[in-house]
Amino acid sequence: MFIHSIAHYLPQGRLTNAELSELNGLSEDEIFKKAGIESRVKALPGEDSSTMGIAAVRNSLASLSYPIGEVDLVVGATYTPDDTIATLAHRVQKAFGIAGARALTLSSACSSAVNAVEVVEGYFATGKSRRALVVASEHNSAFNDEADRYAGHLWGDGAVALHLSRERLSEDDLEVLDISTLGLGDLGKGPEGVYLRVKEGVVRMPNGKDVFVNATQKMVEETAAILKRNGLDISQLDYMIPHQANTRIITKAVEKLGLPEEKALLAIRQMGNTGCASAPIVLSMELSRFRKGELLVMTVFGGGYSCGSMLIRR
Amino acid sequence: MFIHSIAHYLPQGRLTNAELSELNGLSEDEIFKKAGIESRVKALPGEDSSTMGIAAVRNSLASLSYPIGEVDLVVGATYTPDDTIATLAHRVQKAFGIAGARALTLSSACSSAVNAVEVVEGYFATGKSRRALVVASEHNSAFNDEADRYAGHLWGDGAVALHLSRERLSEDDLEVLDISTLGLGDLGKGPEGVYLRVKEGVVRMPNGKDVFVNATQKMVEETAAILKRNGLDISQLDYMIPHQANTRIITKAVEKLGLPEEKALLAIRQMGNTGCASAPIVLSMELSRFRKGELLVMTVFGGGYSCGSMLIRR
Repeated sequence: MFIHSIAHYLPQGRLTNAELSELNGLSEDEIFKKAGIESRVKALPGEDSSTMGIAAVRNSLASLSYPIGEVDLVVGATYTPDDTIATLAHRVQKAFGIAGARALTLSSACSSAVNAVEVVEGYFATGKSRRALVVASEHNSAFNDEADRYAGHLWGDGAVALHLSRERLSEDDLEVLDISTLGLGDLGKGPEGVYLRVKEGVVRMPNGKDVFVNATQKMVEETAAILKRNGLDISQLDYMIPHQANTRIITKAVEKLGLPEEKALLAIRQMGNTGCASAPIVLSMELSRFRKGELLVMTVFGGGYSCGSMLIRR
Repeated sequence: MFIHSIAHYLPQGRLTNAELSELNGLSEDEIFKKAGIESRVKALPGEDSSTMGIAAVRNSLASLSYPIGEVDLVVGATYTPDDTIATLAHRVQKAFGIAGARALTLSSACSSAVNAVEVVEGYFATGKSRRALVVASEHNSAFNDEADRYAGHLWGDGAVALHLSRERLSEDDLEVLDISTLGLGDLGKGPEGVYLRVKEGVVRMPNGKDVFVNATQKMVEETAAILKRNGLDISQLDYMIPHQANTRIITKAVEKLGLPEEKALLAIRQMGNTGCASAPIVLSMELSRFRKGELLVMTVFGGGYSCGSMLIRR
């Protein structure tokens, strides 16, 4: 399986620690220390997860070597949907007139984008798809309580589009060597750790400590496991793209893995936690950095809980 | 692929046309004529799509020949989620302690359950799953405006659990001979036909006529296509289970297909439109009716739009 084209979209709005300080009463320094975030990307009025997803797909067209009408599967990934019936995938299908494609939108919280790629892998295996489009988009600001001192400082908005193909289509394609996901609803506080209860309309993280401990541990375990399964050790890894939830979780996980910290790629400081879109957005941002043959692991952890990883070779 | 065990759960609440008449000002007769619904199943306070899904799984345990802990994939299907981070699949995983399983929850509106089975097919094809659990659950009453004269009469609540396996596990298993889904976001009014805009918190169907026309046509086309692909004609079909959205759509589709009307299995009259759970609930209700070797097609149509079909042999 290959990533043939990838592009992201970040809206123009920003929410700085200075602005947040006015809302939650914490100092800028206190806010920064919580998760290492200085500023969050924030959608403008009129934007939602579907419009941002569509914008990311539009940005992907320049590097797509075939007409988008050849896409035969659209998988949306989001836990912040604007609509659960007319889903992200269906709105992307409409926006680009992708007739005859399968379409569905899924969530496993911040693991959703990796889960979406794994679902594509399944459709490739049955031969029902050859050219798939994964659109991961999060509109956290629509559900965030910015005055919430526990987790209101975390959330950012953004989207990313990945075109996947069964066969290599160009020299520049990224090869997905391995992918794995795991549901962790049974772990720790599980569904009580982080939640977005739709009728309440607010994302909450009442058990931040449980999230921190399990996220750190699972990100280490998943990264080690995917390397081991592929006969690699940590010194052979050129880059790691961790889920961009909290700089402290990332620092801890990278330290435990024994990975030099410059190999962990981050955009959280200026972006916030853009949910399931976050790690693929960093892949898109840093694409020009990767040289032929270099190996990277993307490792994610989601509320609920859930986790996943991908081993990618340029 | 085989359906090894199936069971449903319908909550105890009911909303009759007499009660609805008080809310929307239409006569009972006018309400009945719209979609052929007399009464709708309605969740009780404290129930939601996750609790109903868990109840359906509990009902499935009696006919499951292996411990539920052997499930390695849980796919939730719903467009009426109680939580988009701690999803239906993750809450089922937690409730039954299904450690080590993959878990995700998806929506393609009323096609979600068929899409979920197709996603399972993909996981079976990659060898990442052998024993999967699909849980389809809808809590329409949480999002329904009962005073809405256009579509407030339609919606019911309910859930269903299907255990799927790669190999036949018992003589009674149902074989899924073929399955197919299609996104139709590009068709007609598409995302404007039916929607559940999460921030508004209400399900609406402002373009009922467009839904009616496209649902009827696609249900006919999909049923004919799956029969043709498998070398069958309509006379060889023992039963059809159509999406239970509207008796008028079903009657029209069955007539166009030339199927004797007694072969179309319905529960909508007393149940309402229970969304993506509806057709599998009817399969579960009518299970004892099917004799060895009999063929049935399940055909669904969803808002957004989307459609899908499954050819099943007992």
